[in-house]
Amino acid sequence: MTETTGYSRSGLVLVKNPHLDLMEEDVLYHLDLGTKTHNLPAMFGDIKFVCVGGSPNRMRAFAQFMQRELGLAGAGEDVADICAGSDRYAMYRAGPVLSISHGMGIPSISIMLHELIKLLHHAKCRDVTIIRMGTSGGLGIKAGSVVITDTAVDSSFRPRFEQVVLDDVVVRSTELDKDLAEELLACSRDIPDFPTLIGHTMCTYDFYEGQGRLDGALCSFSSEKKLEYLRRAYEAGVRNIEMESTAFAALCGLCGLKAAVVCVALLDRLEGDQIRASHEVLWEYQQRPQRLIAAFIRKRLGLTRTD
Amino acid sequence: MTETTGYSRSGLVLVKNPHLDLMEEDVLYHLDLGTKTHNLPAMFGDIKFVCVGGSPNRMRAFAQFMQRELGLAGAGEDVADICAGSDRYAMYRAGPVLSISHGMGIPSISIMLHELIKLLHHAKCRDVTIIRMGTSGGLGIKAGSVVITDTAVDSSFRPRFEQVVLDDVVVRSTELDKDLAEELLACSRDIPDFPTLIGHTMCTYDFYEGQGRLDGALCSFSSEKKLEYLRRAYEAGVRNIEMESTAFAALCGLCGLKAAVVCVALLDRLEGDQIRASHEVLWEYQQRPQRLIAAFIRKRLGLTRTD
Repeated sequence: MTETTGYSRSGLVLVKNPHLDLMEEDVLYHLDLGTKTHNLPAMFGDIKFVCVGGSPNRMRAFAQFMQRELGLAGAGEDVADICAGSDRYAMYRAGPVLSISHGMGIPSISIMLHELIKLLHHAKCRDVTIIRMGTSGGLGIKAGSVVITDTAVDSSFRPRFEQVVLDDVVVRSTELDKDLAEELLACSRDIPDFPTLIGHTMCTYDFYEGQGRLDGALCSFSSEKKLEYLRRAYEAGVRNIEMESTAFAALCGLCGLKAAVVCVALLDRLEGDQIRASHEVLWEYQQRPQRLIAAFIRKRLGLTRTD
Repeated sequence: MTETTGYSRSGLVLVKNPHLDLMEEDVLYHLDLGTKTHNLPAMFGDIKFVCVGGSPNRMRAFAQFMQRELGLAGAGEDVADICAGSDRYAMYRAGPVLSISHGMGIPSISIMLHELIKLLHHAKCRDVTIIRMGTSGGLGIKAGSVVITDTAVDSSFRPRFEQVVLDDVVVRSTELDKDLAEELLACSRDIPDFPTLIGHTMCTYDFYEGQGRLDGALCSFSSEKKLEYLRRAYEAGVRNIEMESTAFAALCGLCGLKAAVVCVALLDRLEGDQIRASHEVLWEYQQRPQRLIAAFIRKRLGLTRTD
């Protein structure tokens, strides 16, 4: 069974669940929010950009960065975690931008996205753009390069996400919004100090054996086998590897959210497996997707650089 | 291809990776630890019990609880996060007990376990027992019941874990240590205020569609289909559902760690999908696995209750 992606003409998020309307309350358990305990339209109705990433510290830093970039009151001050009652995810806002952590891996981002999509639905948000900003292993590209994903692929380089529903498997498309990817690439031209490119992103269920690393607790293959696999991935168009993009593309696509994935490469996997760069270098790398996305949001909001 | 589980006679952890010996340094990236930057044998060589769980706050609370239970100096004070340089996982210790968070889902726990197992190997730890303490959805059991897993099963109720290695699939056993499960059950007899049982635990890649919930952003099945699936799971011996046990059982088994899974059920999935209990009730539920595991560790260490 293959499901198709559909965007909503109204600009509203499409929850595709007939049972939701019958519930008198919806507890978004892992976000510690709910329809009876919180006024979601008042809290979130004006959100236009949702940025998600693995690390809670990084997503707090991004919200603070966006406060400065958008010239908002309170810039420079600390931001409050909207999900403080739960330590599963962290959520911050800066004007029309929501910044949320999703942890590592498909199951973790998938729980967050189900609850986020219901939140945007309950809050009656319109025309929301969602961007995952992440870290990744690069493939044949320089450490520090930023990859904008055109298509997320699985470990066999296929543009598909297999979702278990009860004990059945449903195949979902993992295409991302091409116009949005091009718009992001255009923004990167104003940021000359790091390379940005568009390519396929491979999404795996594991960081070690699943990504062909030789440095896990278990490894049953040779360095030659690993390189042969990674070279095949490169030839299939893969430019970076991470652990969330297929599920992100599939869920956002089905729910009518225009979605993009922007990840920095922390290393080139054709050169090695271990992430050895200093904290300072890694920190600067992680700011690159943030700078690109900030430029994109500023442009969309019609803000011009004055500083 | 099926791999078998093997325990080490020496009591040492079995890393099954010939490449590791050739590395002059091992950076445990997501733990922010490494063989050159940290004296791992001095820091961890005396660890005998490793307890892991999804939530960082819960694992900090467990370390503080164990400090009191073991009558350690510093009990009642705050505990330091050993992985403070990374926000991917949190790690605390209380005497011979290490308490680590693993986030949600198989990919997230798998990254942590690869690095933890290498840590125990580098530190030359011996005779380590590892226990996952978690929250779960119950199946045909009362909310608040504690389930000790005998076998972790996948969404088709099979005792197996499929690991992608490069683009191949390897099938791994998910049996847990039967003696350890019985020993834990025996400890539960001294804690009369909640029910504890042994059963199969089903492990899924998703909290919503994968566990047959009607309250996700997407749902394509009826309430009847859902109940039919959950009843089949119950008939196959499943008593609770979570998102990490198959990978945990497979990885620990292969590396010679005696492993157990102890989860509290936050609700009975035959009764509903939403977790509606108050924070206070849920907090008390989450302490139940901790109390059982504390009783087990005290017994192993020959400590008798004096308070």
